[in-house]
Amino acid sequence: MNPKNEFATDPLLTDMYQITMAYAYWKSGRHEDQAVFDLFFRKCPFGGEFTIFAGLSQAIELVKNFRFNPAQIGYLRQLLPQADPEFFNWLSQVDCSKIKIYALREGSLAFPRVPLLRVEGPLAIAQLLETGLLNLVNFATLMTTNAARFRLAAGPDKSLLEFGLRRAQGPDGAMSASRYSYLGGFDATSNVLAGQVFGIPMKGTHAHAFVQSFTGFDDIKNPMLKTADGECSKNFVDWVKKAQKVVMEKLELSSTNVGELAAFTAYAMAFPNGFLALVDTYDTLQSGVPNFLAVALALKHLGYDPVGIRLDSGDLAYLSKEARKMFASFADFLEKKMIICASNDIDEQTLWSLRQQGHEIDVFGVGTHLVTCKAQPALGGVYKLVEVNGRPRIKLSQDAVKTTLPGRKDAYRLYGEDDSPILDLLVLAGEDAPQAGQPVLCLDPFDGHKRVRVTPKTLEKLHQCFWDVSETFENVGEPLQSLFEQRNHAKQSLEQLREDHKRPLNPTPYKVSVSQKLYDYLQELWSAEAPIPELK
Amino acid sequence: MNPKNEFATDPLLTDMYQITMAYAYWKSGRHEDQAVFDLFFRKCPFGGEFTIFAGLSQAIELVKNFRFNPAQIGYLRQLLPQADPEFFNWLSQVDCSKIKIYALREGSLAFPRVPLLRVEGPLAIAQLLETGLLNLVNFATLMTTNAARFRLAAGPDKSLLEFGLRRAQGPDGAMSASRYSYLGGFDATSNVLAGQVFGIPMKGTHAHAFVQSFTGFDDIKNPMLKTADGECSKNFVDWVKKAQKVVMEKLELSSTNVGELAAFTAYAMAFPNGFLALVDTYDTLQSGVPNFLAVALALKHLGYDPVGIRLDSGDLAYLSKEARKMFASFADFLEKKMIICASNDIDEQTLWSLRQQGHEIDVFGVGTHLVTCKAQPALGGVYKLVEVNGRPRIKLSQDAVKTTLPGRKDAYRLYGEDDSPILDLLVLAGEDAPQAGQPVLCLDPFDGHKRVRVTPKTLEKLHQCFWDVSETFENVGEPLQSLFEQRNHAKQSLEQLREDHKRPLNPTPYKVSVSQKLYDYLQELWSAEAPIPELK
Repeated sequence: MNPKNEFATDPLLTDMYQITMAYAYWKSGRHEDQAVFDLFFRKCPFGGEFTIFAGLSQAIELVKNFRFNPAQIGYLRQLLPQADPEFFNWLSQVDCSKIKIYALREGSLAFPRVPLLRVEGPLAIAQLLETGLLNLVNFATLMTTNAARFRLAAGPDKSLLEFGLRRAQGPDGAMSASRYSYLGGFDATSNVLAGQVFGIPMKGTHAHAFVQSFTGFDDIKNPMLKTADGECSKNFVDWVKKAQKVVMEKLELSSTNVGELAAFTAYAMAFPNGFLALVDTYDTLQSGVPNFLAVALALKHLGYDPVGIRLDSGDLAYLSKEARKMFASFADFLEKKMIICASNDIDEQTLWSLRQQGHEIDVFGVGTHLVTCKAQPALGGVYKLVEVNGRPRIKLSQDAVKTTLPGRKDAYRLYGEDDSPILDLLVLAGEDAPQAGQPVLCLDPFDGHKRVRVTPKTLEKLHQCFWDVSETFENVGEPLQSLFEQRNHAKQSLEQLREDHKRPLNPTPYKVSVSQKLYDYLQELWSAEAPIPELK
Repeated sequence: MNPKNEFATDPLLTDMYQITMAYAYWKSGRHEDQAVFDLFFRKCPFGGEFTIFAGLSQAIELVKNFRFNPAQIGYLRQLLPQADPEFFNWLSQVDCSKIKIYALREGSLAFPRVPLLRVEGPLAIAQLLETGLLNLVNFATLMTTNAARFRLAAGPDKSLLEFGLRRAQGPDGAMSASRYSYLGGFDATSNVLAGQVFGIPMKGTHAHAFVQSFTGFDDIKNPMLKTADGECSKNFVDWVKKAQKVVMEKLELSSTNVGELAAFTAYAMAFPNGFLALVDTYDTLQSGVPNFLAVALALKHLGYDPVGIRLDSGDLAYLSKEARKMFASFADFLEKKMIICASNDIDEQTLWSLRQQGHEIDVFGVGTHLVTCKAQPALGGVYKLVEVNGRPRIKLSQDAVKTTLPGRKDAYRLYGEDDSPILDLLVLAGEDAPQAGQPVLCLDPFDGHKRVRVTPKTLEKLHQCFWDVSETFENVGEPLQSLFEQRNHAKQSLEQLREDHKRPLNPTPYKVSVSQKLYDYLQELWSAEAPIPELK
């Protein structure tokens, strides 16, 4: 049984005002009114023009377990001592059997104002879900999108490792970071618990402390190592010393740090098949790489293949190229290509810049900037009421783009001749669906003068029902996909998107439009609800 | 039994390389070597000159529970299939009974390079703790410091509420944010689970959705409300309608949004003693505040005291002042002062700016910027080996400030005549302690020419032992304090610190110095370990 974060499915992981609102709905007899909420964001993160949706599996987990136990009810009673006791009887019966959830597939491309989730059901219960759903979807989506951007910046052929556990925002911040980095296109994590819980591949070697802890060969109690074929044991320390002489001579060096050499030797003896050394504890090119080479040659001598080095400071482009040159001098001995791994406060910009400069790095380890989403640490996802008992509802704002799109809506993605998405179209539920090969009029939701006609080659209905137990008391929604399937879906979706939407600088905005009917509906509601300011 | 985040005390919540290093130490027979690690940071966050240490209670919880169960051992075996099986026997016996932890008190002022934690014990076990301790201390300390900065910016008399759950980095990111915001000086949270688990006061009212969900008085099924003295029921809806006429006439308005008025009425009927209305769903001054006043006057008529309003958009300084003027017109009816609460993407800078402009806000609700620490989303705390078997160890760096201070060290805070701290002094353990009233020579650790002599009025030894079960198999360390005590300690510590260290712009750096002996020690070790670059 894997460990859990019980917080993630606790119905009290919510804002106090959800409870007070639920009470006020109940008190005015409206708690069973049929409501529709949209969960969406208004702007893609990181200055980009795409987002990858994630967090659905965790959201469904929350919904599945959404029940208040007696201890929770007891705590809420304390918080609301003057509330009618009957309310708590109702609350203790609440579950999500009358809730339906429509959503994008996890790992799908998502764009502003297209609902990630549409939640339908009794007003008070759908309201109670708001904070938990936002908490689970906001960070997951942000993190996945961030990882996908790192992947675009690094290029498809590099390995990307998530190394952020120590700098992440708490234990679960770290677990989410590992999970959604993988979904967004990373290859592995250093977080062992994420490996166990989510099945993500693991990577890790050693830290500076290991190197520092050795002062010389005296720290190695037993110098013997079996050869790779297992046939005999050899004095590995002696072989390292011999190899070191060869290396020093060839590189014209007089000394390296002997504690470091001993540390590498000890590490290689523990992992003769996976020797990857951190080379910057004392001095990368004067000590670290030469010491690595000495141990690598000794390993080769015993029949093992050394793996490579990790750079953790300095000018990564320069050091990787210099290290590659040093490896080239020993190519005859090493035979295989050595891996160069780099990790030092790497952000998306650094990856683009390294690509421009040219570098010899094969693997990037990324921590802080990835897991905290430093470039933009929150996605502004919101959860807005769009319909009650079949009546559309609207949230106005002096700022037009903050006005919500009212009513229960369907969304379609329209694809062009080259099979890449052209735009997303929102229509009122019940409207005739747009058809492939037929022209469709698409309007900007807030400016009817901005309109285009699109004849899609194909189209995709974006929302599927992922939670519905209303008939059978069993979820008849679409099954959730595995993390690995979600990751593939994200990769394929991103590949389909046109390059100009993905470029880091001034990407082309991706259009989200509305049908004429939805546009008219919005205008009508706005006229009815917006107060006319009085000029005096 | 409160719910838990089991991730937070799982020994697998660590970087893979801690496991591989532990194996390499074990393999070279060095796992029981006596090590000392310092956990510290190099720069105060947010461009400031102070930090508040937090995370100790969670760190001790981790240490207390640090044991690998068979499932965890099984998983690690899979990850390291070629490792010697004996290693896993050793690993399954590992616990922290031979570890000692010295630390600052939680809630203390902390400064660069002064260890937050000093961890002593067997090399491999102390190494295994690295990532978990960093994860727990880094974010807790960052978050607490961020909250303290918001408190300084808001001023001591304002209420500060943490509203960040929906934008926090996952469920536990949110729980940590609530906990450490409170430690850093916030008054309450909206996060109900944090209220239950940590005993933090709760706050919350209602959201836009509640207002939107009402279209008119028809949505209120029963218009009757008991008077405050409980003696009779009155038709509250009628009273609201009457009061509205009075308000509209006095404010010279012709209409407000009737759905909003109905929503406020329903909310007041649910919480007649705690009526606080969100007034910006349609238009703050044209609709929201007048509608609030209508309901507030009706409540007064039935003997209840309304509470106030919440602003969630627009120019908060202007709107709060205008709302206050409108309240003034009804001062005779309202009697008490109405609370004005504001919440809309508030950051530290906004709080300072509002103070300069003048405003009428009593309570600030702060979300995203607080809980994600948007201004700097990670603290660069590190965990460095400083001693093995009594031998000092050093981590060099071309960047001098990244060089570690070797050896087991004690730290003292020196206080001046006005009882505010002057500087922190690091000395080698075993050196004579500095004495109150006696001059002490204090050197910059990396530049011996920068030195000062201080004659402290008083001084404080900063580290206490919080974990030591070596003799009795019971923790004989200092007891941990409650969250409430930690919060008071943080408040008092911050009050003692001189204003110029705390100001937001160009604060005076707070000095962290070393003794002559530690300075010499560092120089000596540096000369011995640093490679001399070869000029060719």
